[in-house]
Amino acid sequence: MPNAQQSASPSTSNSPLRPRLQRPLRIALFGFGTVGSSVARILAESKPRELELTHIFNRRVARKRVDWTPSSVLWSEDAEAVLASDADVIVELVGGLDPAGAWVRRALESGKSVVTANKKLIAYHGVNLERLAAAQGGHIKYGAAVAGGIPVIPGLEQGLAGDRIERIEGILNGTCNFILSKMQEGSEYGTVLAEAQTRGYAEADPTEDVCGFDARAKLAILMRLALRVQVDPDEIVPRSITAVAAVDFSYARDLGCTIRQVARAQQSNGDLAATVGPMLVDLRSPLAWSQGTENMVIVRGHYCGEVVFSGHGAGGHPTAVAVVSDLLALAHGSRRVEVSSAPAHLGTEFEVPHYIRFLVADRPGIVAAITGALASQQINIRAILQKPGYPANALPFVVTVEPCKTSALKRALAQVRGMDCMLVEPLDLQILE
Amino acid sequence: MPNAQQSASPSTSNSPLRPRLQRPLRIALFGFGTVGSSVARILAESKPRELELTHIFNRRVARKRVDWTPSSVLWSEDAEAVLASDADVIVELVGGLDPAGAWVRRALESGKSVVTANKKLIAYHGVNLERLAAAQGGHIKYGAAVAGGIPVIPGLEQGLAGDRIERIEGILNGTCNFILSKMQEGSEYGTVLAEAQTRGYAEADPTEDVCGFDARAKLAILMRLALRVQVDPDEIVPRSITAVAAVDFSYARDLGCTIRQVARAQQSNGDLAATVGPMLVDLRSPLAWSQGTENMVIVRGHYCGEVVFSGHGAGGHPTAVAVVSDLLALAHGSRRVEVSSAPAHLGTEFEVPHYIRFLVADRPGIVAAITGALASQQINIRAILQKPGYPANALPFVVTVEPCKTSALKRALAQVRGMDCMLVEPLDLQILE
Repeated sequence: MPNAQQSASPSTSNSPLRPRLQRPLRIALFGFGTVGSSVARILAESKPRELELTHIFNRRVARKRVDWTPSSVLWSEDAEAVLASDADVIVELVGGLDPAGAWVRRALESGKSVVTANKKLIAYHGVNLERLAAAQGGHIKYGAAVAGGIPVIPGLEQGLAGDRIERIEGILNGTCNFILSKMQEGSEYGTVLAEAQTRGYAEADPTEDVCGFDARAKLAILMRLALRVQVDPDEIVPRSITAVAAVDFSYARDLGCTIRQVARAQQSNGDLAATVGPMLVDLRSPLAWSQGTENMVIVRGHYCGEVVFSGHGAGGHPTAVAVVSDLLALAHGSRRVEVSSAPAHLGTEFEVPHYIRFLVADRPGIVAAITGALASQQINIRAILQKPGYPANALPFVVTVEPCKTSALKRALAQVRGMDCMLVEPLDLQILE
Repeated sequence: MPNAQQSASPSTSNSPLRPRLQRPLRIALFGFGTVGSSVARILAESKPRELELTHIFNRRVARKRVDWTPSSVLWSEDAEAVLASDADVIVELVGGLDPAGAWVRRALESGKSVVTANKKLIAYHGVNLERLAAAQGGHIKYGAAVAGGIPVIPGLEQGLAGDRIERIEGILNGTCNFILSKMQEGSEYGTVLAEAQTRGYAEADPTEDVCGFDARAKLAILMRLALRVQVDPDEIVPRSITAVAAVDFSYARDLGCTIRQVARAQQSNGDLAATVGPMLVDLRSPLAWSQGTENMVIVRGHYCGEVVFSGHGAGGHPTAVAVVSDLLALAHGSRRVEVSSAPAHLGTEFEVPHYIRFLVADRPGIVAAITGALASQQINIRAILQKPGYPANALPFVVTVEPCKTSALKRALAQVRGMDCMLVEPLDLQILE
């Protein structure tokens, strides 16, 4: 932040009619991990006159203490005491539903405002928490909950409120994007996961990320803001990326595609569809541009067409930028543009082309059985690809099909999955067009 | 925590709980051209309960009248009467400094708020207009002034306020992007300009666009919001795209690049640089992705790294989305996060590699003269390219040089431009790295 921040800058007059900041907002950090310490770091370096870090709460706080925060900061491991303090805003960076949710509720009930990066809490309880905040005269902001440093939430709330968004596609999980964009270079899943863990991009237990639960929560938040529907995140059935193998990237490339974990939702004629999982994306599409831990969100508006946001969605500093920006917005009296949303259920599936990869011990009749099963569900085959160079006793080959519902494809594949030549479960992926 | 801003606006009631909308914001449209009619269209179709279109002002308004706006709308060619009406917000879509600027001032002086898409007015007078608005209890919003349907301004103000932005690069003019991305396919400037004019993407007099004045105004606005400096737009010297020829795309491709009109600014160690013009951009960079009339803005934050925004920056509907979004933000009491900025002057130049294309009647000694001139300014040559297939009496060839200031290069080229073998002025373009 520029040095012009100290006091009355030359550009902002002292008009009596604009809101003057009587005193800085008093900020209590809950959680002093990667993001929490980045928030403190930005506040310490930028010294925004509107914000004052007053409390830091963490379990066993002694091991967290650093020497570069203002000496006035109260370090505490007593959540109740900090909630009862004179802090104006609780910055909740603990994550998870419990006890973070209880702390957020307690803060809002006492009229404090809350800034949080907690996607799970907002995905499951955002509507109620917003109501609670409004009823008590506070605010809850969560720009950091989706795509961290990329201002997707302010962009949707402030810049696209005038449109009717019909579709969202996002790369919302940096861990999966790191893994898949690395696999694109030829490595297998296990190797890349280990590297991601070493580099701190993946948890020891990567389930939340690789199985799609993290992206699903973020998608549910975006669906409320963009499509204006409140969905239970559990209705969105995620697909794991763990079954994707190096051979799939090789076949995808032959199809002009690569593979990314995509979270997508769409509303048309009242029908709502949403899904999360690894998908084939065209190498020329923006989704294929994203590399490493980058995030990307593409929204399609009825009036404005496609808008793409991309950048670093995770990590301490980018996420902390979103937190500090939310704090500044609170300090400046910027109110959310309250988008009205209504409860909704997923009512339909995407009808898209699919990629199906089989791994078989080769013998006559396999293709006949598969094509017969697909035909039984009225699914048209688009292409059959079998690349040379693989052993006959572990032969990967690929069938692509014309647009169909994933459920119809599942029924077709159920007919062949029991064949003793199938070495692994067939892998079916949506092809994004 | 600052209190909700005191404002004459009916949208921010003093409810202790949340701002209730007592009645819709009353909207007067100034200008019923492409964007104005799109705004009216969105309001007519979306019917946001927070907004009511009450007045439409246009010169000789009779020829503009349509039958699909609410019958209650007052059509007028009397600007004074509409300014004196009970409208809460003037939406200024007339453009230019005069009389639009006078109308905007009059509206703000009377305590109304203003939403505008007028990049020139905001670039030259934005700071003063914001002061005036604040002094009179109104607001001025201009999300549509830069990159239309792409929420760059809300993204910067709301989502990146917590960062310190160090660099901006943008494709801010859809006309230039259409022309240059078409020329990439092999056509000459004149042909593509004619097509752009036929399709309504370029004015009969395209000077504002192709010479960079439009992009320069937008860059000045972004510099204030992102780099927090107030610069006189006239300090930014734009370069025209008119000298770029099909042959330059051919050479650029050999260098792994294409050509785009780029507006860029950078602040480091207090040194401020900004420029607008055609530049070589790497084919793998986001700037090369933008096709047709698309816009793109890339900002680099100290903490969040690169963030990319792209989409449709111009046209009636995308620009109207930004206008309607600003109106909704006003109706919901969302206040700008007031970024303090300070007056500044451009103090330096970019030191970047350059591409120089010569068109000569070939004869011995030309390369010796050019390399000598470059050496006299301590400019190192990176490559000399001369593709076969061009006639010796009109031979284009290219020299690329290591990073140097454009002014040093100008001095070097001044030494050779007078040579009688030079058929046209050498074309020097920055290479964006």
